[in-house]
This record gives sequence, C-alpha cells and structure tokens, in this order.
Amino acid sequence: MDKKIKKILTIGIGEFALDSAYWQRIKVLAEKIINLPKDSSEIKSELIDTDCLLTGFGIIVNKEIIDSAPGLKYIGVLATAYGKVDVDYAKSKRISVCNIPGYATEAVAEFVFGIILEHVREIERGKKQTREDNYSEAGFSAVEIKNKIFGILGLGRIGSRVAEIALGFGADVRYWNVDRRKEFEIKGVKYEDADILISKCDFLSLHFAQVKDTENFLNKERIQKIKKGAVVINTAPMELVDIDALEKRLVDKDITFILDHSDEMSSENIKKLSKFENCIIYPPIAYITKEARIAKQEIFVGNIESFLEGSLINQVN
Amino acid sequence: MDKKIKKILTIGIGEFALDSAYWQRIKVLAEKIINLPKDSSEIKSELIDTDCLLTGFGIIVNKEIIDSAPGLKYIGVLATAYGKVDVDYAKSKRISVCNIPGYATEAVAEFVFGIILEHVREIERGKKQTREDNYSEAGFSAVEIKNKIFGILGLGRIGSRVAEIALGFGADVRYWNVDRRKEFEIKGVKYEDADILISKCDFLSLHFAQVKDTENFLNKERIQKIKKGAVVINTAPMELVDIDALEKRLVDKDITFILDHSDEMSSENIKKLSKFENCIIYPPIAYITKEARIAKQEIFVGNIESFLEGSLINQVN
Repeated sequence: MDKKIKKILTIGIGEFALDSAYWQRIKVLAEKIINLPKDSSEIKSELIDTDCLLTGFGIIVNKEIIDSAPGLKYIGVLATAYGKVDVDYAKSKRISVCNIPGYATEAVAEFVFGIILEHVREIERGKKQTREDNYSEAGFSAVEIKNKIFGILGLGRIGSRVAEIALGFGADVRYWNVDRRKEFEIKGVKYEDADILISKCDFLSLHFAQVKDTENFLNKERIQKIKKGAVVINTAPMELVDIDALEKRLVDKDITFILDHSDEMSSENIKKLSKFENCIIYPPIAYITKEARIAKQEIFVGNIESFLEGSLINQVN
Repeated sequence: MDKKIKKILTIGIGEFALDSAYWQRIKVLAEKIINLPKDSSEIKSELIDTDCLLTGFGIIVNKEIIDSAPGLKYIGVLATAYGKVDVDYAKSKRISVCNIPGYATEAVAEFVFGIILEHVREIERGKKQTREDNYSEAGFSAVEIKNKIFGILGLGRIGSRVAEIALGFGADVRYWNVDRRKEFEIKGVKYEDADILISKCDFLSLHFAQVKDTENFLNKERIQKIKKGAVVINTAPMELVDIDALEKRLVDKDITFILDHSDEMSSENIKKLSKFENCIIYPPIAYITKEARIAKQEIFVGNIESFLEGSLINQVN
C-alpha cells in the first residue's frame, strides 16, 4: 500500500487524548505510527525518518528537533497555542504547522458565566447548606449581571462570544482590543480605552492570547486601577497578570479574582493566590466539554487529511 | 397634621423586611402605624380602625379579616403572589389590593443559568478540589448550552427573560404558554405543544405562576416523558410538580432535577427529594439580589404613594 505519509511520530499525545475513532482515522493515513511520551529519550532517533509530527499541548519543537527530521513536511499541534513551536524556522524548511483554533470557544465562554454566577449568587454555599438540611435563605446576598459594566479585554473568538452572552444578560458590555471590532459595536458592545475600562468595570474578563504584548498586561498599575468590588475573571493564561501585584491587591479584599488554573502556572504562584478567600481557583476545566473534545479531534484530524489533499487549513506559518 | 391615612396596620412584615428609608417613607403617610407578627392575637382588634393594611408573603386575608376592618380602603401585599388574599371580596367592599409584580424577574432568570452551569460544568466539584490542592482536570466532563433544546414552560415575565438569555447562549429555545407570544417567536423562540416539548428538551425550565390550571402540570404522565439526560429546573413553586411521580423518575437516575426550595414545600416532600443525588435543592435564593430587594421596596411603597395620589398601580382586583 502506497500511503502519502511514511511515518507519523506523536509526542505527548496520550492514548486517551483522542477517541479510538480518531486514532483510527490517523492510522489509516500513514504506513507507520509511533507514539512517544514527551520526555522520551527516543524522540531524536525516531525523528530521522518522520514526515509527519503530531504534538500535544506545550511540546517544544525547536530548531534542534526540526533539524533532526530532515524529511518532515507537517507539524500538527493538538492545541490552540503553538508558542513552543518555532513556526518561522519550520516555514524556512517548508514545513507546514497547523493548530486547532476555536474548538473550545463556547466551552470557555459559557464557563465564564458559570463561575461568575457561582460567585455572585453564592451557589456553592446554597448547595452545601441544603445538604446539611438547612433551607434558610438568611444571610444570602447577591448582585445581578444586568445593567452592570461588563468589560472584556481581547475581543477575539472567546471574548466575542462572552460579549454576546453578556448582552443576552442585559449587561452594559464594553471592550478593549488591539483592533476596533465595529461588527460588535453595532450590536451594542462599546469600545473603551483599556485603562479606563479597567477602572470602570463591575465584571472584567480577560481574553487575550498570550503573546509578548499581552504578557503582564494586567500589571501593577492596572491592577491598582481595578474598581472596588469588581469581579475579575481570567480563563486565559495567568501570564497576562502580574501575580505579585495581584497578591498585593487581593490583601485589600476589595476585588474578587476568579481563575481557571492553567498547566503553565507554577506551584509557587498558585500558593501565592490560593491563600486568599477572594481568589477563586478552578482546575483547568474551562475548555472541557464533550462538544469541545469532539471539535478538537475533528479539527486535528481534519487538518492532517486536508494537508494530504493539498488544501492546508489552520496553518499558522 | 391631616394625613390621608389614619392608621396603617402591618401583618407579618418584620423590621428587616424593609430598609429604614422605606419604613420612613411609609410612616410619613399615616398618622399611626402598628406592626404585628402574623400570629398575633391582636390582629382583629387592631383592624377595627385600620384603613391601610400591609401584609407580608403568604398572609391570609379572608372575608373574616376584611369584615373586621370596616374602614379598610387599601391592602398592599409585599410579594408577587397574592393568592391568600380574597381579592374579589375586597373588591366588593371597594378595597384596592396591590401586589409587587416583576421585582425579581432578573434575579430569578440569572439564577436559572447559575444553577444550570453549576451542574453541567461541575463547578462545586472544581472549587472543592482546588481547596484540597488538587488542580487536575481528570474526570471532569461537561456539556454546552449552545445548540441544545432549551424548553420553557410559561413565557411570562421570568420565562421571557430566561428565553432571551438562553438565546444569547445560542440555545435552540422553545416554549409552551397558554397564549402564543408572537413577539418572542420573531426573536427565534419556537412554540411547541407542551407534551412534545417535554419529551424533546435537553434543558427544561418551569416558569408558570401557581394557579389551578398549573398545579401538578408536571404530572406522572409528563414526568415519564422527560427526555433521558435532561436537566429540569424549577424556580417556580413545587406545586407545579407531582412530587411522588418525580420521586419515581429520579430513581432511574436518567434526569437531573434542580429546584429552588420554596417556603411552601412540606418537609415531607423535601425528604422525598433530598435523598437523590440527581435532585439538587437550593435554599429559596433565586429571587434574592440587591437589585430585587430595592425594586421590591420601591414598588411596595410606590404603590401606597400612588394610591394616595389617586392613581392606582399594580392593582390586582
């Protein structure tokens, strides 16, 4: 059988990262498939005759790796973020790099409202109390999303969906993005200068991709500007936030910070934040839904299939 | 000083049911104000010279009470529900009865999404786990609201807002109401026969007012029709639901029922339901927000002030 791909090497993609139906769709594309964990010592030797490399989230694919695979034509990343792949060097070697954009847009956007409402409506407390046979509403207090200033930093895929859902709740939705998004302004999402927005919001949700310009975007100065009583939500990487400055502000107990812990966050930083009652940390579950998992696999495998058919989709280089 | 009201009698409105500013606004309207708890033995004797009666939630105002107050002109109910007041008899005596409609519309509608998302995203589990220093997403599973069939029974004030928010989430929103609501159908909310709707929905939210026709609406037959895997939410009175039939269905573990426990629910019924893991019970907190509390008081006091100015608002008889 003469297949277009001689050998697929996967790095850091566990057996359960893909459902068997998707593994099957990948396997039929290549003559051979080798799966290695991310810390395997065999990576370099296996790369020699690899023409298709598939990597999990956060796997480093630098010049050295690329140079170890002289026959490499395609790198597929099983994630939206591809910052660990040297895409320019790959391009210079005519290697296409494809990622999985947008598979978890809805999952993350819906989660943002789940964790906001959990907090402002004391939902965990309500559940816990009834389990203890206490059905009293005494002492519960809450605020509504309607009519509140709901700020969004970064109006990309996820930020846009958060904006639309917030409009459904009747919030006064405002955004800052590096580019104006007139199509959302027509719907009623107002543009504001980032610093002014931060100082005004009742709810502030971060949706930047992590790039050089957005790292530490919520710096000391901006964290100090956050309105008293505001709820700040970060389902994006915590690299967007100056953790030490956040720690100092949390001491004042006048803001609430809710985050979806990312794998990239150091245990030192987690320790700094987890001691605060007004910092609510979730496991990295914002992107986890059945729908997102299916979309992720569909796009990942679809990317490879399209590459073989000569029409590249989701190429990032 | 010649005030229009000689005597206000309040029954079952505790000191903290109203903020002092609102008590103040009420006090200036009358020459005298007497506050009694709902089980006071002095109610009848105090009614003799009362011209304005203000009652808390669920206070019985029957013929006997009305006949005890020959000078009564106005009954103000500090609630939306006024089923315990004999409004027809009051009308025959030219007594105006006013209630407080819609003050908690937004509070309840937002809460519906809070408790849905808590459940489908395992939010309580996420919070609990990180407090125990476990940041793993292993084993979490979730579904999205987008593209799911979101059924609403009763498209009144609250049901309509739930529909609008569900549209924001991108759900396939459908409703049954005793009257068609074309203005919502234009927005994309589809009308369905109630029984068909119940058998199709992924999410089903109950928003009927409790009247004769809606009591036990979710009867044995309809409960059996609920789609496997559906999440049913009831923030309306549990009198809409046949509890014994629900109990039988919950045994099958193929639906989840989430309810906001109402004061009217018997402890016997709570016991029947609270033993099920797939029945999530909250204290009656759906209607509790700061905004709702302010609106409630504003409408309550505004009703009395308007009555004195000769323009009745929120009259129910």
